[in-house]
Amino acid sequence: MKDVHVGVIGLGNVGSGTLAILNRNSAQIAQKLGFGLKVTAVCSRSVAGLDLADVPGDAMRTADWRDVVANPNVDIVAELVGGRGAAREMIDAAIANGKSVVTANKELMALEGADIWDRAIVSGVNLAMEASVAGGIPIHAVLREGISGDRIAAIAGILNGTSNYILTEMERRGDSFEDVLKEAQALGYAEADPAADVDGYDARSKLAILAALAFGERIVPDDIFVEGIRRITAQDFDYAHQLGHTIRLVCSAQRTEKGLILSVRPALIPESTILAGVKGAYNAIWVKGEFGADTFYYGRGAGPHPTGVAVVSDLMRVAREIRSGSPERVSPFAHERLGEYQPVSVLLQKRPYYLRFRVDDRPGIIAELAGILASKQIGLEAVLQLPCDTKNDLPFVITVESSPESAVREAVEQMSKLDFLREPPLALPMEPPL
Amino acid sequence: MKDVHVGVIGLGNVGSGTLAILNRNSAQIAQKLGFGLKVTAVCSRSVAGLDLADVPGDAMRTADWRDVVANPNVDIVAELVGGRGAAREMIDAAIANGKSVVTANKELMALEGADIWDRAIVSGVNLAMEASVAGGIPIHAVLREGISGDRIAAIAGILNGTSNYILTEMERRGDSFEDVLKEAQALGYAEADPAADVDGYDARSKLAILAALAFGERIVPDDIFVEGIRRITAQDFDYAHQLGHTIRLVCSAQRTEKGLILSVRPALIPESTILAGVKGAYNAIWVKGEFGADTFYYGRGAGPHPTGVAVVSDLMRVAREIRSGSPERVSPFAHERLGEYQPVSVLLQKRPYYLRFRVDDRPGIIAELAGILASKQIGLEAVLQLPCDTKNDLPFVITVESSPESAVREAVEQMSKLDFLREPPLALPMEPPL
Repeated sequence: MKDVHVGVIGLGNVGSGTLAILNRNSAQIAQKLGFGLKVTAVCSRSVAGLDLADVPGDAMRTADWRDVVANPNVDIVAELVGGRGAAREMIDAAIANGKSVVTANKELMALEGADIWDRAIVSGVNLAMEASVAGGIPIHAVLREGISGDRIAAIAGILNGTSNYILTEMERRGDSFEDVLKEAQALGYAEADPAADVDGYDARSKLAILAALAFGERIVPDDIFVEGIRRITAQDFDYAHQLGHTIRLVCSAQRTEKGLILSVRPALIPESTILAGVKGAYNAIWVKGEFGADTFYYGRGAGPHPTGVAVVSDLMRVAREIRSGSPERVSPFAHERLGEYQPVSVLLQKRPYYLRFRVDDRPGIIAELAGILASKQIGLEAVLQLPCDTKNDLPFVITVESSPESAVREAVEQMSKLDFLREPPLALPMEPPL
Repeated sequence: MKDVHVGVIGLGNVGSGTLAILNRNSAQIAQKLGFGLKVTAVCSRSVAGLDLADVPGDAMRTADWRDVVANPNVDIVAELVGGRGAAREMIDAAIANGKSVVTANKELMALEGADIWDRAIVSGVNLAMEASVAGGIPIHAVLREGISGDRIAAIAGILNGTSNYILTEMERRGDSFEDVLKEAQALGYAEADPAADVDGYDARSKLAILAALAFGERIVPDDIFVEGIRRITAQDFDYAHQLGHTIRLVCSAQRTEKGLILSVRPALIPESTILAGVKGAYNAIWVKGEFGADTFYYGRGAGPHPTGVAVVSDLMRVAREIRSGSPERVSPFAHERLGEYQPVSVLLQKRPYYLRFRVDDRPGIIAELAGILASKQIGLEAVLQLPCDTKNDLPFVITVESSPESAVREAVEQMSKLDFLREPPLALPMEPPL
């Protein structure tokens, strides 16, 4: 049977991983499909000096992406460049030329994915983005097909490998955020500017895509509450363990009667839960279905080969649909059309909270803090203080019963004005067992 | 757009769960598909006394499955009866009548799935079986589509919820196999005849299906080495914990240069691994890809609703393919055609082993056992004995270095003849960290 032809734009990590798999696994791919997937064109800003051993000798090599999207022999364009401006231009041009698109671009798909899918529908082509979230975990296929019959009630995930590496190393070694970050940067696990990772913005884009897929709504990333991990200390892990918990950067989407509550934030999760077992640069996603109950997915979050598997698997699916001339393309968002998103403020969410203080010790501190909590109708659960040999800059923890985030924030704001506090209290929600 | 029509045969647990989801989630299903899934016919040996609240009023109700497979309004037949003879007849008749089939039948698909798929190809219809293995986990969609670009090197799974419930309860409470089994039977978690579950045959069928899907080979279930959990004691968990391990009924498929090694057997797995965290009636599957590395999938193994989600998700996928008139049906085995299976005996597999003895104590026992191990070129690693207040029926453990199963079995056979042993040694492989 006739091959389907692929043009690859972008030969960085993901691009080179994709080409390696297409080349080295070509026989099995053809065996699964009943036809071959052939790389016809590759594009990189500079093709000089690149290792192109995995590129077929007769494939076009170009530095101009327009050569790829205009190439009449290309059936599917793999956009593996990332970012927004140029990538959007490439994808639009490919779609306008009647080519299907596979992309690994989380930022673009989070912000403009629904619009791009609208264009793909009009042009009768397909769009796939398995690699855009949690590279090694086939969570798109799971939500789009594997459990498509279910109605999702909630998802919770660890979607940023760098943050998870930093947190689990802090936990394992008792080192500070700053020390572990520096080391991660030296090892190449964290970027020189770590903001996108440690402040939660990378995870936010991924959550926006996953929530759109799970709930069929057009999610605006800016509506997602986001808080990073910079304030977490090694002592927070000690206190969390005392409470039978650990701390992770949790991406959470919860369907409520009023709409979706979405957040990316460090949270306490019970140590006994499977999500707590996710260590290092791994990603994981827990899904709560109304019918199917709990399912859990775990794998590498990134890396040329794991992400390449996602791209190649998408290429195979899209190639099948091209070969069948199918008018029943499956939406990359699982739903034919995304509905309008009803954002519900995280302020309405009720959780138990962990409040960690750093104080200069003097009599009456607990009474004063407890008084503020009481004035906000927040029930105090426990006061914890681990052994400490100083009276200055003393850490301790108060846990409170399930309370609305709005009340907890008001209490924290009022507490922040107290002169015995070295810094504003750190407030982390305690998530229910997942 | 025109609905796709479904006939459901079998209204037991899975059938009723499927009908509940199709009814209660119909709006979202239509939103995802762009058309509706409508139940046109239902069949049960006796429809009297059944709760049919989830069946549309205008659907045909019949006690004769021939009415369903002959019904010209039915596009897809869901075979939810189980077993072999009659189920095979129903599926063959449906396919012969040009209807696609969705099935939850593990036994049939393990033994005759490849032949049934051959028939489906000839008739130009589709066949889907997500519900046949690990009901709540969409592992078929994952292997067939999500990571189809990868080449699988190994899979390891916990695929029998009853066994896992018994083992994890023995572990948690320190009770005997017999006591926990009796309780599980009283609670309805285990059947009156527990053989299929605790002797590993149910898990073997599931492994045969998963391995066919993962490796593209026609697996003969009888070729899979199988050993049940009846000999595991509460003391084995104590010793395993001493070694940093736990014990689970592990379904394992490993690609080697010579072919596949397949087994279902109790094994020691490191406590730190994510597979060790799978408790109770949950199922889990770990997949090692040559490119994508480790991924892990977890969820309910059974239950009307989790399994119903699998059936409904399959119905949705098959309905899409029907609506697109697609000639590019995706094989339920991921590969268009299954290749010939190269079984490799588990005797060739090398592992460290845990050997547990029950002896009447006397001097020279260790020397005698160590002598037998040495004569088989098996390196002794450690001897463990937990505190014990008796000299009769004394348990203790020897662990040995990585050795071929064949050598370990020869040693065990020779040891079994020793008069100080109360029973033959229990030999369990120690699996590498997954």
